[in-house]
Amino acid sequence: MAVGMFDSFITRGWFDPEAAALWNETATLQAWLDVEAALAAAEAELGLVPQDCAEIIATKARTELFDLADLEKRIATAQHPFVPVLAQFAALCGEPAAGFLHLGATTQNIFDTAASLQMRSTVKLVLDHLDETLDALCALAGRHADTVQAGRTHGQHALPMTFGFKLAGWIDELGRHRARLAERFSESFVASLGGAIGTHAALAKDGAEVERRMAARLGLQPAGLAIRSSYDRVADYLSSLCLIAGTLEKIAGDIVFMQRTEIGEVSESFHLGKVGSSTMPQKRNPSTALKLVSLCRLLRGRLPLIAEAMLRMDEGDSSATNVTDVTVPEIALFAASATAMLRDLVLGLNVHPDAMARNLDLTGGLIVSEAIMMTLSAEIGRHAAHRLLYDVAQAVQSENMPFAKALRDRPELHRLSAETLDALLDPQGYTGASGTVARSIGWRGEVQGGSDPDLAG
Amino acid sequence: MAVGMFDSFITRGWFDPEAAALWNETATLQAWLDVEAALAAAEAELGLVPQDCAEIIATKARTELFDLADLEKRIATAQHPFVPVLAQFAALCGEPAAGFLHLGATTQNIFDTAASLQMRSTVKLVLDHLDETLDALCALAGRHADTVQAGRTHGQHALPMTFGFKLAGWIDELGRHRARLAERFSESFVASLGGAIGTHAALAKDGAEVERRMAARLGLQPAGLAIRSSYDRVADYLSSLCLIAGTLEKIAGDIVFMQRTEIGEVSESFHLGKVGSSTMPQKRNPSTALKLVSLCRLLRGRLPLIAEAMLRMDEGDSSATNVTDVTVPEIALFAASATAMLRDLVLGLNVHPDAMARNLDLTGGLIVSEAIMMTLSAEIGRHAAHRLLYDVAQAVQSENMPFAKALRDRPELHRLSAETLDALLDPQGYTGASGTVARSIGWRGEVQGGSDPDLAG
Amino acid sequence: MAVGMFDSFITRGWFDPEAAALWNETATLQAWLDVEAALAAAEAELGLVPQDCAEIIATKARTELFDLADLEKRIATAQHPFVPVLAQFAALCGEPAAGFLHLGATTQNIFDTAASLQMRSTVKLVLDHLDETLDALCALAGRHADTVQAGRTHGQHALPMTFGFKLAGWIDELGRHRARLAERFSESFVASLGGAIGTHAALAKDGAEVERRMAARLGLQPAGLAIRSSYDRVADYLSSLCLIAGTLEKIAGDIVFMQRTEIGEVSESFHLGKVGSSTMPQKRNPSTALKLVSLCRLLRGRLPLIAEAMLRMDEGDSSATNVTDVTVPEIALFAASATAMLRDLVLGLNVHPDAMARNLDLTGGLIVSEAIMMTLSAEIGRHAAHRLLYDVAQAVQSENMPFAKALRDRPELHRLSAETLDALLDPQGYTGASGTVARSIGWRGEVQGGSDPDLAG
Amino acid sequence: MAVGMFDSFITRGWFDPEAAALWNETATLQAWLDVEAALAAAEAELGLVPQDCAEIIATKARTELFDLADLEKRIATAQHPFVPVLAQFAALCGEPAAGFLHLGATTQNIFDTAASLQMRSTVKLVLDHLDETLDALCALAGRHADTVQAGRTHGQHALPMTFGFKLAGWIDELGRHRARLAERFSESFVASLGGAIGTHAALAKDGAEVERRMAARLGLQPAGLAIRSSYDRVADYLSSLCLIAGTLEKIAGDIVFMQRTEIGEVSESFHLGKVGSSTMPQKRNPSTALKLVSLCRLLRGRLPLIAEAMLRMDEGDSSATNVTDVTVPEIALFAASATAMLRDLVLGLNVHPDAMARNLDLTGGLIVSEAIMMTLSAEIGRHAAHRLLYDVAQAVQSENMPFAKALRDRPELHRLSAETLDALLDPQGYTGASGTVARSIGWRGEVQGGSDPDLAG
Repeated sequence: MAVGMFDSFITRGWFDPEAAALWNETATLQAWLDVEAALAAAEAELGLVPQDCAEIIATKARTELFDLADLEKRIATAQHPFVPVLAQFAALCGEPAAGFLHLGATTQNIFDTAASLQMRSTVKLVLDHLDETLDALCALAGRHADTVQAGRTHGQHALPMTFGFKLAGWIDELGRHRARLAERFSESFVASLGGAIGTHAALAKDGAEVERRMAARLGLQPAGLAIRSSYDRVADYLSSLCLIAGTLEKIAGDIVFMQRTEIGEVSESFHLGKVGSSTMPQKRNPSTALKLVSLCRLLRGRLPLIAEAMLRMDEGDSSATNVTDVTVPEIALFAASATAMLRDLVLGLNVHPDAMARNLDLTGGLIVSEAIMMTLSAEIGRHAAHRLLYDVAQAVQSENMPFAKALRDRPELHRLSAETLDALLDPQGYTGASGTVARSIGWRGEVQGGSDPDLAG
Repeated sequence: MAVGMFDSFITRGWFDPEAAALWNETATLQAWLDVEAALAAAEAELGLVPQDCAEIIATKARTELFDLADLEKRIATAQHPFVPVLAQFAALCGEPAAGFLHLGATTQNIFDTAASLQMRSTVKLVLDHLDETLDALCALAGRHADTVQAGRTHGQHALPMTFGFKLAGWIDELGRHRARLAERFSESFVASLGGAIGTHAALAKDGAEVERRMAARLGLQPAGLAIRSSYDRVADYLSSLCLIAGTLEKIAGDIVFMQRTEIGEVSESFHLGKVGSSTMPQKRNPSTALKLVSLCRLLRGRLPLIAEAMLRMDEGDSSATNVTDVTVPEIALFAASATAMLRDLVLGLNVHPDAMARNLDLTGGLIVSEAIMMTLSAEIGRHAAHRLLYDVAQAVQSENMPFAKALRDRPELHRLSAETLDALLDPQGYTGASGTVARSIGWRGEVQGGSDPDLAG
Repeated sequence: MAVGMFDSFITRGWFDPEAAALWNETATLQAWLDVEAALAAAEAELGLVPQDCAEIIATKARTELFDLADLEKRIATAQHPFVPVLAQFAALCGEPAAGFLHLGATTQNIFDTAASLQMRSTVKLVLDHLDETLDALCALAGRHADTVQAGRTHGQHALPMTFGFKLAGWIDELGRHRARLAERFSESFVASLGGAIGTHAALAKDGAEVERRMAARLGLQPAGLAIRSSYDRVADYLSSLCLIAGTLEKIAGDIVFMQRTEIGEVSESFHLGKVGSSTMPQKRNPSTALKLVSLCRLLRGRLPLIAEAMLRMDEGDSSATNVTDVTVPEIALFAASATAMLRDLVLGLNVHPDAMARNLDLTGGLIVSEAIMMTLSAEIGRHAAHRLLYDVAQAVQSENMPFAKALRDRPELHRLSAETLDALLDPQGYTGASGTVARSIGWRGEVQGGSDPDLAG
Repeated sequence: MAVGMFDSFITRGWFDPEAAALWNETATLQAWLDVEAALAAAEAELGLVPQDCAEIIATKARTELFDLADLEKRIATAQHPFVPVLAQFAALCGEPAAGFLHLGATTQNIFDTAASLQMRSTVKLVLDHLDETLDALCALAGRHADTVQAGRTHGQHALPMTFGFKLAGWIDELGRHRARLAERFSESFVASLGGAIGTHAALAKDGAEVERRMAARLGLQPAGLAIRSSYDRVADYLSSLCLIAGTLEKIAGDIVFMQRTEIGEVSESFHLGKVGSSTMPQKRNPSTALKLVSLCRLLRGRLPLIAEAMLRMDEGDSSATNVTDVTVPEIALFAASATAMLRDLVLGLNVHPDAMARNLDLTGGLIVSEAIMMTLSAEIGRHAAHRLLYDVAQAVQSENMPFAKALRDRPELHRLSAETLDALLDPQGYTGASGTVARSIGWRGEVQGGSDPDLAG
């Protein structure tokens, strides 16, 4: 019977199955074994381990050879998560190979390096999801480069813009996240082989070279000074990963708002059979967007745990590593699943330009009062123009009058011809750089052909 | 293949199996069905549902009759976690009973009320764990009421006390948590039946009475104004539950320190076969205490998510309830498991009075400089006494001299007889109320005979 | 030149001036002196301090006698926040009274007890603000008990309700916060006099009695076991205080939404001279509601610091108390200011029933599809009724058709008379218990005549 | 009367005065004026503003010309933080210059760009503090490259190392933070001029060019797509800045532990007059280290607020920017002050090699059981060697026997000569790469001669 959100049948569907496959118990065990095999192979290159022993170790480093039920029991007895794995591994290898397992390593070296491998695959998924999202958004921005929509600040109509411009803002922000995640990976998730306290005591002068060769075999950078109580590299990266939640949640929030019954400017993909409520048959909820908000809250919510896990007594501290051992997989799954969810949301998004136009007209031109003020500034000074427009705009709101008429009643406005004023009052004419930006936005350049060499593995 | 910490074979052992059994997917489904059955029975009492239909519903409200694999698929299609459950439930009941399922309810009513049931069982476990811990601590405090130990502030020896006094501090704090958790439960986790937005629209005037009767059948209080966007009651309780982490983590931190190689005043239970390291055979780590610290960090770490989940748009908002649907079980499991872990830690704790005595003597009497100052104050005034003692105590630390000799060299101290000074310099003589407190500490009174009527269910 | 948000001219206006006056540097110093005076007076009752010395101490316990500039310098030198205060205090008192200052106390006893005094005054302010808010909300709920409005879930129209019902939900939640804050204060903020490590060592057997008498003089409960590393009582209370942010922010969010240009159902108080933008003259932002959201985020955001500050090494730990010394005042100011801001927001709120009615009609009756389903259930069973209504309601949304007509085209609906269907389609007729609840909601009963005896001081 | 921690005489001394001077109310106002002046000058280059008007604006952009008391009053009335500043500024400039103030800008453009300027100066301070710290640590690491000390994991002696090696770990981690902070600044804190919603509507096609020229004048990068609801760049940088708290707090925690009465391996700088307690004259607390821990908690504690402030409704949202307007200065002050505090702590640190040696010997050689196991592995296989050493090491701990003797009693150990075993049991001989690492550690290379061109301004 599954207990947690990733495993229960009720919520399992929230999570990207590819990401889940990277972090399930078998995948984690396999990652540990892969690191042990790479360690033995690296040591064999240096003559520290006989070549045939390293080969046996590689052969036996397969989860399907392990007895998981037995492992679970022995982990409980030993109160140690890895020594029982080593014992089974040793039994599988037999002597003399067994004697060369884990040479110069400590458990945390294996776990940290394995997490680097699992995280690399996760980041590839995240980047793929972002790429697909960005491609879809760029196409959509092009299509709606000139679809005029109310720009809003503080919940109020501010200035006109185009929907493509709004999308350009999303693209810009997502593109920067993507670039940061790709650029920073290799220096953040490294291969570690410092031994018990980072001094390479058990390997003497060979420690650093073993670490380098092990790292090379795994496609990772070596840790260098592999001290177990330094977690700044991973914490820095994970904070970048958690912060994508800020952007995704902002976008999801915009979509939830734009799908509001009263707004109706966009709507999530719908299919017959999708249900909004057990009691209200009419409901078409933005359920994917709301679920995305939830995932983002969970993702952001893990950030303080990571920062706190940098605090490690002395040369090693399981009170911190226990936390990261269980929280890093959660962050990985949240990030991969949230980006997949955004992609699906964007791919299925319906846009309703008619609703955008309808909403834009709601204020009878108040939304372009800045345009009139700017034009009038040239005539009567900016300060006077602001005051005049403020007086008129506030009066029409208090008294529920048409803005255009109120303007025409003011003598100062007579300096502007009727045509000029009409033109100024048309929201379509005051979208600034919206269209240009929406048409020119792109993000591919930043990834140099779409490949991420540092993540090649 | 399990993914999350509660289900993976690597970490499953951290968690209390009884608590896990309360929150696994089947237990959650059963809690939902129990609420539906209670709802139908309550409605039958009022004639809203035929009695035989309510009975059929009760008969079919058993998880073993459900097809979980099919549910999972349909949940994915419907993008709704409960409508497919209702559909299977309806099929099991057949008409006409099926037509009376879920009458007047909305999904969140069922989920929230089910969580109240699961949480009640969880809190009982937590209280049991705390009771066992408190009993053990009280016994230990009695045994060590006069075992003298250095009291420390800011990491430095401060004044002498007894180990029993330290334990009394833990007991006092844990006892208050226990009282709060018992007293506040029934007003916090209620039965809700407001329907779609809390107006009881579908049941007209009967809504409130149905809620009361449903609540009574489940042993819960009725929500009253069952508005779905009010989460203050649960959030308040969960914050109390999360805050036990502060106390447990403090205690665990004290134990980790007192077990330090250099301190050695207490040690965790050890058995042959318990392993501290894959590479250092000598290690006897305080691994339970460190794991307890980790669980407490995870528990405290969920607190902001709960506070944020109080923010709910309008009359209902799945972006918040999705978060609590998955986070409340985590809090429950962390709290039940952390309290069980503390109980085990306390039950297995070894106390080393000889090490306490050895450490107490390390400063050669500096630890009782307050005692000498207080006595001298009567002779030369408090201010002068503080200055004199400050001068002497700092000088002996800078110059690494014996404190007793330095004191005797000061003329002001000649007012005190040699015997008086010797007596003052004995840490055993300046433990204040330590022994009295340790002997008298108790907690049972607060729970009125150990039963918690509000949690009776 | 002021630096922080509470002192800078730019943001000082966000904060309640009465609350600021309770926590400024002079008020804090005065609270410390008040505790010292109460301590001396309590000790004089027991003959531990000469009566005339206690009187001198009381006379000199006035901040205007202190030299703050000199204090600041000496605090820097001593690297201790209170010993320089004691030195000035001693000089003001002269011998022999000076010799009886601070007898049996440690700095943290004074600081913690002083914070209890300051927090008591703060909580009175908070309760006053909540009372004024609740009174205003109750009156408003009565006035709008039958003002029909769309109830919304997940951002979509759900069922009709009345605006008074929505307000009742706010009242219910705020009333519970109010009750919790009033009930829990006296057991949470206590008077402490345990001395250096809580053993009362310096006062021997009199310690507990001195604490009781000192507490009684200050109108507080005694700590009992006054151990400095126990912070659960304060942490528990502060978490309750922080959680009001959840409710206030929810309400503010609802107001921001209802003031949206497209919604227009309520609006914040506006006066000529209030400015929304430096560049857009028309702007009428919900700036108070948005500022309230900000204060709530700051308030909620302090919660993890408080939980973490429960972790205290051994018998005392300034790494934790430093944090609370500066964070408790922040929480106090945020809570008092946010509740004042909500009061002002509610008192100035404009309600626009016409806009509510207009929005309610937007879906052409889809908002009452549950009503039709419930009625039809009696005829064709709940399952079939849900499916039929789902089919029709989704079809009209996909094809943008009138709901009423689509219903009439379905043969199953012919069982209902035209009048019945028309009545069912009227949102005014399906507000459930809204009006009753809105008319009956109150909160005064819970505070027993409006006085809070435990906070009497 | 000051209220907040940065301004109260009680705590003002915690904060770096240079940093405080960068963020006080006058400095903030000046930064706003600097941005307005740069904007006007940039626009003058393009002919959008007459050259002489831009010059007048530059001349009047001086805080000493402003009436702060009047500003405060008008900010309260307008409920807007900047429009009153603009009004005073306009009055100072007179027409026609006043008419060209703030052209094409919105308030948040000015605030965000000003914060970039203030943050640049802050980061320079932070880097200076880190550089001074790193220099001191490198020198200390060199001096103690061979000072042997117990390496500890999970609170227990693990393996020997040198104090220089421990310092190398700190250096390595701090050096990486330094590199990240220097490298990432210029792309994170930019100059923004998008106008009301980022469309440059008021400046038409000139907007982007004005932003570029304004940025160049201020030594910043232009925002590009200057959308107000994108905060990922700043959030990313601030999270890096907050994460230095993790490293600083870890170091401070190590120092607090090593200064423990029982450990005594290092001690904070002490001077006569520094006071540890109002009642215990002997106290020499690690008060700077504990204060540093506190500052780090406050710094880390602001991280979730920043992440949450990325959530911004639509094109602008003061509920988020209010939070960052007050929290960014706090982060700046915490970071600058914490790094200054670490520098002072390191510069004053006393090291006690004798205590390190004494502690190292406490276990009678158990600390090098890995060394013996590694040597024995070559003879009897790793698995058997681990088991043997485990048995012996655990037995001597349970029975309190000398480790060396117990080893010599085991026949398997007879394979090793007495000299070999003696050598293996000497902790001095098993420090691995400690000395080499400590001697070679450096950090200057990473900053290319110590200058940070991107921060040149």
